[in-house]
Amino acid sequence: MSTVEELKLRVRELENELIKCKQKSYEDTDHQACPRPKIDQMSAEVVDSNPYSRLMALKRMGIVEDYEKIRSYTVAVVGVGGVGSVTAEMLTRCGIGKLLLFDYDKVELANMNRLFFQPHQAGFSKVKAAEHTLRNINPDVIFEIHNYNITTMDNFTHFMDRISHGGIEEGKPVDLVLSCVDNFEARMAINTACNELGQTWMESGVSENAVSGHIQLIIPGETACFACAPPLIVAANIDEKTLKRDGVCAASLPTTMGVIAGVLVQNVLKFLLGFGTVSHYLGYNAMQDFFPTMSMKPNPQCSDAYCGRQQQEYQKKEAQRPKEDVDVSEVKEEVVHEDNDWGIELVSEVTEEELELASGPVPVLPEGIALAYTIPTQSGDSASSAATVGETDCSLEELMAQMKKI
Amino acid sequence: MSTVEELKLRVRELENELIKCKQKSYEDTDHQACPRPKIDQMSAEVVDSNPYSRLMALKRMGIVEDYEKIRSYTVAVVGVGGVGSVTAEMLTRCGIGKLLLFDYDKVELANMNRLFFQPHQAGFSKVKAAEHTLRNINPDVIFEIHNYNITTMDNFTHFMDRISHGGIEEGKPVDLVLSCVDNFEARMAINTACNELGQTWMESGVSENAVSGHIQLIIPGETACFACAPPLIVAANIDEKTLKRDGVCAASLPTTMGVIAGVLVQNVLKFLLGFGTVSHYLGYNAMQDFFPTMSMKPNPQCSDAYCGRQQQEYQKKEAQRPKEDVDVSEVKEEVVHEDNDWGIELVSEVTEEELELASGPVPVLPEGIALAYTIPTQSGDSASSAATVGETDCSLEELMAQMKKI
Repeated sequence: MSTVEELKLRVRELENELIKCKQKSYEDTDHQACPRPKIDQMSAEVVDSNPYSRLMALKRMGIVEDYEKIRSYTVAVVGVGGVGSVTAEMLTRCGIGKLLLFDYDKVELANMNRLFFQPHQAGFSKVKAAEHTLRNINPDVIFEIHNYNITTMDNFTHFMDRISHGGIEEGKPVDLVLSCVDNFEARMAINTACNELGQTWMESGVSENAVSGHIQLIIPGETACFACAPPLIVAANIDEKTLKRDGVCAASLPTTMGVIAGVLVQNVLKFLLGFGTVSHYLGYNAMQDFFPTMSMKPNPQCSDAYCGRQQQEYQKKEAQRPKEDVDVSEVKEEVVHEDNDWGIELVSEVTEEELELASGPVPVLPEGIALAYTIPTQSGDSASSAATVGETDCSLEELMAQMKKI
Repeated sequence: MSTVEELKLRVRELENELIKCKQKSYEDTDHQACPRPKIDQMSAEVVDSNPYSRLMALKRMGIVEDYEKIRSYTVAVVGVGGVGSVTAEMLTRCGIGKLLLFDYDKVELANMNRLFFQPHQAGFSKVKAAEHTLRNINPDVIFEIHNYNITTMDNFTHFMDRISHGGIEEGKPVDLVLSCVDNFEARMAINTACNELGQTWMESGVSENAVSGHIQLIIPGETACFACAPPLIVAANIDEKTLKRDGVCAASLPTTMGVIAGVLVQNVLKFLLGFGTVSHYLGYNAMQDFFPTMSMKPNPQCSDAYCGRQQQEYQKKEAQRPKEDVDVSEVKEEVVHEDNDWGIELVSEVTEEELELASGPVPVLPEGIALAYTIPTQSGDSASSAATVGETDCSLEELMAQMKKI
């Protein structure tokens, strides 16, 4: 039997071991949970410990006038998948003021072929897992997450409310909404909300075959909304017949999704911080490394009533503006294009006449961009009878079903 | 004084607590260290638990013929910074066979404005931190890391040895070398090694003002090497005088670096798996969303003797080839271009005549691409007297100094 002395020694040993173990456990957790203290003010100081030095250098380089302004902006990211998660990470690393994240999905191992999520997060909700990682990366950003599907009635109402009141100053609207969703309904929900609220947003998408994608800027009343024109797709230049769609998953690549997230957030930075040319539409065809750009005016016969109202308001504002008082955004674009003698011939605009014709024949688009389907006429004809199909042999029903799967 | 019974109870309590603590600590570590078991064979099965389903779907979509082949390839990534780390992550998520990582830097908080590294990794060597994260993401990939500067004599010899023997089957060369470095010396070291070994490689770069970048494919003897022609830069279209360079850091953005890593790895996938058109040179101008492409033949007067030998061997092979036996790579490109009626007008080739002239006037380049400086003549003139400078007012010395900083 053990003596008291032996037992006392054993107790001391165990106590020491336990302290060590707890300390280690604490350090491990601490390591993850509190990686760096918050930083009150962005500094341009060139030291290894300054996470903002390389961003603040954009001022010295003459690219951005007031980089710190990024902290005053709120961006909502809808869809935290292959594009949305990387989008959120880029904005977080750039030091955005506030991020709202919307998604209802869980992380799966099947998502591991895209950037951002890691296998140990499988099973967690995407917004929760993303917030955890992003907060570790930059604790200066304010995060607000919503783990729901925005397309159901109640959630849609809440979504509208957060878009219009969830700004960095509670009660003010967000500055930009980014659509990083993978289906037609969610895009239409965002479009409906933004048309009603007059909220500027950017749409993004990647094709089912993983080798093309696009981004699009939508300013209600000023540029075509998602309901104004059939969704544009970058012509894949691939035999569509090789695509079989029954009961299979879409392909995806971290490369294509990374490029789309990159050009999307670049466009966001240009839009918010006022540098370069903000693209209205930029496509990416990975097979040929082809990047078409274009602009599109809104359709006066758009099926979304709020889009029509926004168009009227925009036209009223335009008409009231004195002729010599040129739009600020136009001035900016002109300044940027001043030295641009590269003849980017792919940039073109679809005229209103062309868009009015869209209910019948396919509008004239820059080469390399195609329509997923054409708009049904507004005259009460059934959608299927009025629609003509551009470049494929599929029926409108098939194409709509395909769109919904995107 | 404690009784024996009391002490025994305390020992049991402590033992239990210690077991619990160790278990927790083990689980925490385990979580990080072994997130998913290895997978012997890539499967196309569409289940949430299959990390390869979305990649294997590329076969069904008609994009890639044999995706599993990716496991047989080895890629060396030199420089694990803003571009290299994302490049390595994309390749890891795509299931590349083996990755060799070379870097001698440590992670700093000042790197947090780019993707991949996290604040808790500050202070760790980039290659070690990267390997830890990447192994968690995909334990099927074989990693080999080298924490050294490839430009010193001993390390360069070792680097050459690993490039020529570090393939997935030890003793065989790697399949591709990717330059993701941020300085001129390291690029020249990679160029020298690859010319001597006849090793195909891809170069990448991002400008100091963070808003442009490029990738370039170099096949020794067949396309221009890094010493054949002055490094190409995407014309920034920005007043260079606003750039002040004394004692300041370069700007960088996660967007630009993410796009460059994305198009680089996309080019790697196209090259290794044989789909689409492999770009010889692709530029990215973020200010205008402009993406120029071009091709460049090697310079017969290249200062690198091994480049000259590779050119002779390539020409010998070309001459020996029966006229009707068309190069496989050419066939592929023709097939891809067959339906390409987009008129990508920016694609052009610099002829040998033009390159021969490069020692004097600036060669004709597609609009939007400029030379960092011109090649000094081979006639023994001093570099500075022979060089002419393209679009800036800087002297060659200034430009060389700038190049070294890139």
